[in-house]
Amino acid sequence: MGMNYSKIANWIIAEDSFNPETLGKCEAIMSLGNGYLGVRSATEEHYLNETRGMFVAGTFNKFDKNEVTELPNAADLIAVDLFIDGERFALDSGKIESYTRELNIKTGVLSRSTVWTGSSGKKVNAKFERIVSLKRLHTIAQRITLSFSNDVTVKIHSGIDGTMTNTGSQHFSDGDKRFYDKKYIQYVQETTQSGIAFVETAVHELRLDDNLLEMPAEVFIERRKVYAGYTIEVKSGQILVIEKYSNIYTTRDKGYKEKDIHEMQEISLDACKTDIQTGYDALVAESAAQWGKEVWDKAPISIEGVKDAVIDEFAVHFAQYHMRLMVPSHDNRMNIGAKGLSGEGYKGHTFWDTEIFLLPYYIFTDPHTARKLEEYRYLSLPGAHAKAKHNGYKGAMFPWEAAWLDDGEVTPEYCDVDILTGKPVKVWSGFIEQHITSDVAFGVWQYAVITGDEDFMEQYGYELIMDTAIFWASRLEEGKDSKYHINDVVGPDEYREHVNDNAFTNYMAHWNMKKAMEYYHILKDKKPEIFARLDKKFKLDEAYKTWEDRCRKIFLPVPNNENVLPQDDRYLSCKDIDLEKYKKQEHVGGITRDYNLEQINQIQVSKQADCLVLFFLLENEFSQEVKKASWAYYEKRTLHDSSLSFSTHSVLASDMGKKKLAYNLFKKASMIDLGTFMGSSNAGIHAASFGGVWECVVYGFGGVRMLDGKLRIRPTLPDEWNKLSYTIIWKGQKLAVKATKNGIDVQNLTKTAEVEVEINGEVCVL
Amino acid sequence: MGMNYSKIANWIIAEDSFNPETLGKCEAIMSLGNGYLGVRSATEEHYLNETRGMFVAGTFNKFDKNEVTELPNAADLIAVDLFIDGERFALDSGKIESYTRELNIKTGVLSRSTVWTGSSGKKVNAKFERIVSLKRLHTIAQRITLSFSNDVTVKIHSGIDGTMTNTGSQHFSDGDKRFYDKKYIQYVQETTQSGIAFVETAVHELRLDDNLLEMPAEVFIERRKVYAGYTIEVKSGQILVIEKYSNIYTTRDKGYKEKDIHEMQEISLDACKTDIQTGYDALVAESAAQWGKEVWDKAPISIEGVKDAVIDEFAVHFAQYHMRLMVPSHDNRMNIGAKGLSGEGYKGHTFWDTEIFLLPYYIFTDPHTARKLEEYRYLSLPGAHAKAKHNGYKGAMFPWEAAWLDDGEVTPEYCDVDILTGKPVKVWSGFIEQHITSDVAFGVWQYAVITGDEDFMEQYGYELIMDTAIFWASRLEEGKDSKYHINDVVGPDEYREHVNDNAFTNYMAHWNMKKAMEYYHILKDKKPEIFARLDKKFKLDEAYKTWEDRCRKIFLPVPNNENVLPQDDRYLSCKDIDLEKYKKQEHVGGITRDYNLEQINQIQVSKQADCLVLFFLLENEFSQEVKKASWAYYEKRTLHDSSLSFSTHSVLASDMGKKKLAYNLFKKASMIDLGTFMGSSNAGIHAASFGGVWECVVYGFGGVRMLDGKLRIRPTLPDEWNKLSYTIIWKGQKLAVKATKNGIDVQNLTKTAEVEVEINGEVCVL
Repeated sequence: MGMNYSKIANWIIAEDSFNPETLGKCEAIMSLGNGYLGVRSATEEHYLNETRGMFVAGTFNKFDKNEVTELPNAADLIAVDLFIDGERFALDSGKIESYTRELNIKTGVLSRSTVWTGSSGKKVNAKFERIVSLKRLHTIAQRITLSFSNDVTVKIHSGIDGTMTNTGSQHFSDGDKRFYDKKYIQYVQETTQSGIAFVETAVHELRLDDNLLEMPAEVFIERRKVYAGYTIEVKSGQILVIEKYSNIYTTRDKGYKEKDIHEMQEISLDACKTDIQTGYDALVAESAAQWGKEVWDKAPISIEGVKDAVIDEFAVHFAQYHMRLMVPSHDNRMNIGAKGLSGEGYKGHTFWDTEIFLLPYYIFTDPHTARKLEEYRYLSLPGAHAKAKHNGYKGAMFPWEAAWLDDGEVTPEYCDVDILTGKPVKVWSGFIEQHITSDVAFGVWQYAVITGDEDFMEQYGYELIMDTAIFWASRLEEGKDSKYHINDVVGPDEYREHVNDNAFTNYMAHWNMKKAMEYYHILKDKKPEIFARLDKKFKLDEAYKTWEDRCRKIFLPVPNNENVLPQDDRYLSCKDIDLEKYKKQEHVGGITRDYNLEQINQIQVSKQADCLVLFFLLENEFSQEVKKASWAYYEKRTLHDSSLSFSTHSVLASDMGKKKLAYNLFKKASMIDLGTFMGSSNAGIHAASFGGVWECVVYGFGGVRMLDGKLRIRPTLPDEWNKLSYTIIWKGQKLAVKATKNGIDVQNLTKTAEVEVEINGEVCVL
Repeated sequence: MGMNYSKIANWIIAEDSFNPETLGKCEAIMSLGNGYLGVRSATEEHYLNETRGMFVAGTFNKFDKNEVTELPNAADLIAVDLFIDGERFALDSGKIESYTRELNIKTGVLSRSTVWTGSSGKKVNAKFERIVSLKRLHTIAQRITLSFSNDVTVKIHSGIDGTMTNTGSQHFSDGDKRFYDKKYIQYVQETTQSGIAFVETAVHELRLDDNLLEMPAEVFIERRKVYAGYTIEVKSGQILVIEKYSNIYTTRDKGYKEKDIHEMQEISLDACKTDIQTGYDALVAESAAQWGKEVWDKAPISIEGVKDAVIDEFAVHFAQYHMRLMVPSHDNRMNIGAKGLSGEGYKGHTFWDTEIFLLPYYIFTDPHTARKLEEYRYLSLPGAHAKAKHNGYKGAMFPWEAAWLDDGEVTPEYCDVDILTGKPVKVWSGFIEQHITSDVAFGVWQYAVITGDEDFMEQYGYELIMDTAIFWASRLEEGKDSKYHINDVVGPDEYREHVNDNAFTNYMAHWNMKKAMEYYHILKDKKPEIFARLDKKFKLDEAYKTWEDRCRKIFLPVPNNENVLPQDDRYLSCKDIDLEKYKKQEHVGGITRDYNLEQINQIQVSKQADCLVLFFLLENEFSQEVKKASWAYYEKRTLHDSSLSFSTHSVLASDMGKKKLAYNLFKKASMIDLGTFMGSSNAGIHAASFGGVWECVVYGFGGVRMLDGKLRIRPTLPDEWNKLSYTIIWKGQKLAVKATKNGIDVQNLTKTAEVEVEINGEVCVL
């Protein structure tokens, strides 16, 4: 009981039993959205342990000086409380005869059906349906269909609830509350620090046996709440339909530079009128069509095979579903949060997850959206400059966690508790997890090469590469050995703080400067105007000289005698302990309940892939021997306490021909949110892991890689699969790849230009 | 089922069934406290519709500019979540075999016993007990006693929860979280605007069959939360006792002028260590003894009679219980909130309720506390001056709603919704409900006369009377009739806004100026130093001349031909409608759902007593005929939509010899919170109505009155009572009054001085 996979062939993930203690799971993994708006799938009725959440991309607010800016939890529009002859409809009391909750990821429709008998013996047959429109970015539509075993009085209490908080932090000032035409209710709230006004409007339509009920709402206006009440007599066998149409607008929306709340109140009210006129069925059809257009027809993936192949296919579709929900493709001033828009976790902040785990999917399937994600980095350069300056460096030092464009670094300084001292634990990432800067540069380069978008490079890309390279040149520290080192950092493996010469960090810094040098020549030779512009900004000749010097003398860790690349200068000499206990634990972070971080720093243990990510990104820099030996060495010391870890391991296992292992690791990656463990998604889905799932399939099994500027396709299907089909866009040409055990077929569907692809070792022109 | 009065002879009010939809009632009426601290009696386990609340007197905070300052809801210390073999202990699921919740008002102990079987069939016998110490103002102690039908694993999750809000408004910044000795947990939070730090510490002690369990807590530190977790194997028949000792300190506490959070963290931790060492039983005994000392032995009241006499006695004890909970007798910088410390309602603000409804109880039973309440008014004079100045007046214009000393007027500007326009309704009280200023003066005078506390008068009282009289002189408006009017006010009856010459307001303003003139002579003649000090401030001779002129020419409404005193210049000419519907409604304010306030203003309808309060305060100013005719006229037009209304009517009915009516109205007054209606106390108890209950008994039936500076006792017992005994303190002498149907006995228990009393028309010296 719990998650049910029996309908996944129909694109449906289901929950087949109701447990009021594990509500967070489906709230997050079944969440709805469209990149502008994300709504956790909390139920219509309230429960004690629910976590209602509605987030609008980019609407960051800082509660006070002790907290970091975060995405605020907007006033709830979803709740509809039902009272049947005075008894609250709630599945944690009474008796449930049948229950199922389903998310259809193809259409974006959430539905829930139950037959429930209250303690008074009255039975209700209830169906709840809901969408967040992918077509009308501000619109939510709900339908509730009820019938009863007895004649009953149904009371409906439904509206807009602004008492929502982010775990107690209230980000909004209470604002105007209105009702119009005895029917439309409206609530205005405004973020306390960033001053963003949110306007929400909702309206209800009731039908009894298809007859419209024209009763006025009883309206309740309270502190932070506007509610409508309806009381309806329903006879046994009659069908009562309740529809709720609601929407949300904010002054951070594009086009609202000059905020005029009154105007937005009118827009919101008008939109609500249009939506109710359009009707629920038409809104659903329109939104489902948009899902086809934007995702399923645009970037189809299919997997055929035995056993679990159908769930594997669903898993990658599920990843695509969530990658559409989380991405603000409508606005380049925003980026993707580590939990998407599905929960408070990580506060809506953007990490390296975007470039390293998610960007490949968007680049290869939706380059316009990918471009916006990198434009965001360009627009937030002022914060990166400020951070560099604050730390005594030059150039662009990107924040480890990023929020609004001018926020700069927003990583919280403390979290959790030290199990030894009883004091809060300092989070060092915001200070010294510096590899993010080369990750951003890497993302820019990836985007540019795969799309061939020279306009982006000229406007933003070259500058980003130069600016980040300048940072690294200033960041390097000359050692007594006359080599340049990067000391006191956190690498991707966050169980190791204050390390020197983290392999990932050093190699990527080196790559970043090398790339800048390469572009220096290209610009100087071929784009003198761009060169001139950037030269004015950066003094490129001088910068070039510094890069040259730094690249020559930077310390790049070399593999030891066993071909293992040292993760940092101390890792290999730390003590080994038995990690079996933690490897087996279903929850993550178990080791931190036995050791504090200082102690963990003395153990050969990794939270997540570190060197292995480096092998993945700079595939051609390392020999197969080094990769294999390092893989073997680190994997057994890696607890995969980060959701980013499995997919990296899986893709590399595919590369190394470890098919079985690659598949097993893919299964683990794909089940992070989708699996049966009910506790892991409470704070929101794991955004980057969805990118990882796509990478396992298309990069790992599908064998796609951009290497040194060239496209390579070299599939290695797992034994369980017979056929894998997918599309990728390479330099504007959409390629359809069909890989089977016996061969591969690649077609250029666009055919407006020829492209060169290395397919299974052979260079082809399509 | 619901409230149960079977144990009231033992000072116990009980609830004998559990209803998760009406939790607010017992949370409020069974709340615990000590004047420093008030805690709503939410259950240990959580429910959806609970309203947890813990308030520390005087710790006001303003969420933002759109809201008014209010008493913030501090981090919860009460919750203890229990999981029995993984199932949450919660009475809204599973099966309840027996249930009772009891508040013993004599000892201040709240207890709850239940036998409950979870859905897994495991039966638990649970008893929950709790006190807020009256002896140690910062201390809360809880004990949970559990036994089970099966061998079970019990998980305890208990700590400090700072996600509490005031209906969504978060008043605190998240602060330091600690644990000490693997056992004590501590949380610091700080109000966002007023900067008051709260430190809370909690610790648990567990015993299994009387053996102390020495296990370390598993500690969870999250956003705004610090929790301890324990897992215990309990065999069938074993008794598991869980004790939780917790406390709260704030930087607003007296003696913390220079706030040092670190020092307070130590004090709080040390106090927690002392409390756990003292132990639950000793803390209960000590606190119960303090209840005797401070209340039951100090101000005993007993009622003997037939039928309901036992509940009548309990009702007045219940009033005394709550009047101790609500009064900050430890600190003169604070006053009483309209809901005491038992809920968010009225935001902890102080109204005229203090002087007109509550003060008499404290003056006659606990003059030290009464003095502090009036010192508070003196200390908040700067705000009253500012308000006068802001409105173009002179002197002291007291705020309709008052909070911290320098807050000035804190009445919210909007509330509720206009049923016609759909827009928020403006609250006019803060602007034009001005009688509060003479109410304060009246309180000062009452206190001074009844206690004979000349020191208070010299330090504060004379000045308050002069300052308020100066306000009134400047407030009066000269009309075309050459009379002085007070136009555009709200009188005590808040259903009538923007009225002219409200009788209560005009007569009390007149009284206030007259009193100032009287004191002018006394000071000039007998206290030249005080006179000189005040003269310097007020230019008394000039002020006197103005008062004289105003008093001569002020318009004082006179009774019409039917002896009815017009409540204001328009009341008697407004239209009469059938009010039966609203008079019958169990909830208040029903008329506002049919008419908006503008419409109500055109109807002869009163929310509450208005002229009648005037008759009560200035008893000797009006003839019996006028009182009777007015009583009859207004009572049938009064909806008693204010809890202040019944007691005034009851006392006056007693005065007029309407014994039956007086008793019926007393019953209504006494059942406002104590009665069976489950919906009325959610936002907190009705503080003033408790004063009203005491007034019904001691003023109404007991016949006590201070009239023109003299004590009068003239009991008129209701037919249901045989004997009424009470004590009052008159000019420092404690008098014990025993009234029966046949006579009266009054003894001076103090006997350090002689006092003159008019008893049943005869002047006696005791």
